[in-house]
Amino acid sequence: MAKFLTNRDENYAQWYNDLVIKADLAENSAVRGCMVIKPYGYAIWEKIQAELDRMFKATGHVNAYFPLFIPKSFFSREAAHVEGFAKECAVVTHYRLKTDETGKGVVVDPEAKLEEELIIRPTSETIIWNSYKNWIQSYRDLPILINQWANVVRWEMRTRLFLRTAEFLWQEGHTAHATREEAVEETERMINVYSEFAENFMALPVYKGYKTASERFAGALDTYTIEALMQDGKSLQAGTSHFLGQNFAKAFDVQFTDRNGRLEYVWATSWGLSTRMVGALIMAHSDNHGLILPPKLAPLQVVIVPIYKSADELSSISEKAEALKAELERSGLSVKYDNRETNKPGWKFADYELKGVPVRIAIGPRDLKNGTAEIARRDTLAKETVPMESIINRIHELLNQIQKNIFERALRFRNDNTFRLDKWSDFVEVLNSSGGFISAHWDETAETEEKIKEETKATIRCIPFDSAAEEGKCIYSGKPSGRRVLFARSY
Amino acid sequence: MAKFLTNRDENYAQWYNDLVIKADLAENSAVRGCMVIKPYGYAIWEKIQAELDRMFKATGHVNAYFPLFIPKSFFSREAAHVEGFAKECAVVTHYRLKTDETGKGVVVDPEAKLEEELIIRPTSETIIWNSYKNWIQSYRDLPILINQWANVVRWEMRTRLFLRTAEFLWQEGHTAHATREEAVEETERMINVYSEFAENFMALPVYKGYKTASERFAGALDTYTIEALMQDGKSLQAGTSHFLGQNFAKAFDVQFTDRNGRLEYVWATSWGLSTRMVGALIMAHSDNHGLILPPKLAPLQVVIVPIYKSADELSSISEKAEALKAELERSGLSVKYDNRETNKPGWKFADYELKGVPVRIAIGPRDLKNGTAEIARRDTLAKETVPMESIINRIHELLNQIQKNIFERALRFRNDNTFRLDKWSDFVEVLNSSGGFISAHWDETAETEEKIKEETKATIRCIPFDSAAEEGKCIYSGKPSGRRVLFARSY
Repeated sequence: MAKFLTNRDENYAQWYNDLVIKADLAENSAVRGCMVIKPYGYAIWEKIQAELDRMFKATGHVNAYFPLFIPKSFFSREAAHVEGFAKECAVVTHYRLKTDETGKGVVVDPEAKLEEELIIRPTSETIIWNSYKNWIQSYRDLPILINQWANVVRWEMRTRLFLRTAEFLWQEGHTAHATREEAVEETERMINVYSEFAENFMALPVYKGYKTASERFAGALDTYTIEALMQDGKSLQAGTSHFLGQNFAKAFDVQFTDRNGRLEYVWATSWGLSTRMVGALIMAHSDNHGLILPPKLAPLQVVIVPIYKSADELSSISEKAEALKAELERSGLSVKYDNRETNKPGWKFADYELKGVPVRIAIGPRDLKNGTAEIARRDTLAKETVPMESIINRIHELLNQIQKNIFERALRFRNDNTFRLDKWSDFVEVLNSSGGFISAHWDETAETEEKIKEETKATIRCIPFDSAAEEGKCIYSGKPSGRRVLFARSY
Repeated sequence: MAKFLTNRDENYAQWYNDLVIKADLAENSAVRGCMVIKPYGYAIWEKIQAELDRMFKATGHVNAYFPLFIPKSFFSREAAHVEGFAKECAVVTHYRLKTDETGKGVVVDPEAKLEEELIIRPTSETIIWNSYKNWIQSYRDLPILINQWANVVRWEMRTRLFLRTAEFLWQEGHTAHATREEAVEETERMINVYSEFAENFMALPVYKGYKTASERFAGALDTYTIEALMQDGKSLQAGTSHFLGQNFAKAFDVQFTDRNGRLEYVWATSWGLSTRMVGALIMAHSDNHGLILPPKLAPLQVVIVPIYKSADELSSISEKAEALKAELERSGLSVKYDNRETNKPGWKFADYELKGVPVRIAIGPRDLKNGTAEIARRDTLAKETVPMESIINRIHELLNQIQKNIFERALRFRNDNTFRLDKWSDFVEVLNSSGGFISAHWDETAETEEKIKEETKATIRCIPFDSAAEEGKCIYSGKPSGRRVLFARSY
């Protein structure tokens, strides 16, 4: 199994692609740029969904569903939004097919042309604010705290499984507030939900901060982001939360009567996180043996493999294994007992390593005699023999340790690869060798930002929330700067 | 509140529409035929999803996700399928917009025309079987038991909220099997899952049976259906399960090596249930006061309303109410304490009746003194005063009774409106007065079926699985018939 993976250190991009395919997470479909998310990959997404949905509801949000289609004219309403979004997208122009002349195929019916073309949503601010207009009259109707789980389409030219696909799955929160302060607070609350989710569940340490003006969401006054470091030294934007000010309220004329009887425009936020996160999960933790999944998001947490020669041995082992499986399941874990006779234990070991199952238990004749089992942890591949009496506790302990260990390993890697630099030659040198985050001074001009991008492909990933005031000189222009920002090449 | 509902007995269609809007379940959007599912309506769908998903997983299925887009040519591969499906659908022809001449609007970029048009999935058999082709080589790769939660689009000309919309949400199961028997068994298993769900959770009694050839899914050898009676005497097809034979395997060339080393085509099923079920839920149980929701699917099961004159009274009541809410929640129920001072108790009572909350608790000063509370059940509107000591048990008992009662009420209505008829004049008479199901003999010709439809708008809803062999004469043609089938007008 694993031997068919490209070596991670030789070709990271190919290793990633091999892993997605061989671990049965996803594959390309017959439609350019669209992927099929296979059951194992989708099971990870379901785990992500369940945790996030719980966190959204705990912070007062409810789910709803808005149309897939957006009338073309809606995009022109918010000037910055149309500039940033409406270009590369799927356009529906007709609503009927008809049988062709041969009688065997179908063609688009030219009679069935839409008066106004419909765009497949690349994001839903416009169609949602067009609805909110009818929902909001008074401050009593506010806040509106809605999330939507949906598919969206952005016609990307260069696609990669999970990381960048024409269609992807995501959640998009769209909230409406009576005051600027409340909307800003919501924007912050949601970037914190994302970072908490990333760190506690994905085991993914993130930098939190502001996007620069040129990296902001189209139509936002402010975009907050969480940025995570992948093993090849590139950053991945893992979730964003936008303070939209009154831009969409003005574009769709959404006003309300405030407590003082005055008519005001509504304040907005939006925030989203997508199936891209599955890509981040893979890239951040996995190795040359395959996936390493954090126990809290692993679809299968424990696998039990019997080691046997005879049918008698298998039968005795199976008895122990089934009882153990039942007990582990009662304790809240997802467990599989793999007693397939078609594959040898070694093949199974490699396969579950490829799939990233956090803990593997092997039971052989000697274990039966000694009342023990062999446990292997996926993150370090370390093995230990434990007595059956204490195995349940040990497995839970181990799962916690694995969750903690892969977070700490990723954190160490991230910290070791965050460089505080002041010289342009060092900046270029680091990008061309290890990659990673570079904390450097910047003169706050879009011009410098653009030049750095042109010369090095690095962008400002964020201005960290905790970036302290510090006198310095821009690493590129030498002009004065008041604080450091984080640069990196990115996905 | 409720007084703004059209009277159910005067205009059922308008009553339904009023109810969907006023109970805040859904509304029409700016896009023709597409609805916005509002938070309260979506919460019901989430409950439906959670139960069905659990049932699918318990029967061995896993979830996955396939592309929204289907290449146009895929539809032509299966002849019956293209005939039945590919006509009224949304067609994507372009993938880019550009700024128009004024610089303010956008137009479709004529340069960005797709070589082959993409259809928004009306159902996913074709794109899924095109994927299965690569997944299946040997009998060891079978069965594949996959479900997908997705949005689909069928360009309906006349739409109604939940019941018939251009875009709707659903689940679609697509399974692949090594033998005909196994596929037939799966088709049956899933119609049974649907009927169990309908009866136990939706409180909706259903007739289970086969569709006639002319009512079958496009491409199926057999379609099983569950049919439920709405209060206006029309039937609603609530879920279908299709035995697809080898049709899609042949269309997409999906063969496997069986246990004997022979190359065979794979056997298929598909089955789906949609947001239409929310419409069925509303239509089957609700009344002139508003929604009646089965407790097992009600987003909010219990509401507590304080009855008070002074702030002091409110404060004493709130103390009791908050404690009661916490205890009810600990016992597994979803509960709201509505202490809003902006609305009077009578207004709140009417509002929660409109929203179909199964149990309402009112606590006033007299209750405080007596250690009691007043409970009202939504299904019968009956009230009772209960001592606080026994209230938790009583509420659970009541929720079970309500679930049971609305099922039995619907069953009684369905049975009272199922007519065993042998004369054509009675057939016409019943359809024009009460409506309902008509169990009658049919000569098994598509011609008779079509004529009955033309003359009465009634169709054969199903040939019930339990329809016994019985000599008779077709109610329309008088020709011999071997068993009765069920006719009705339908949604």
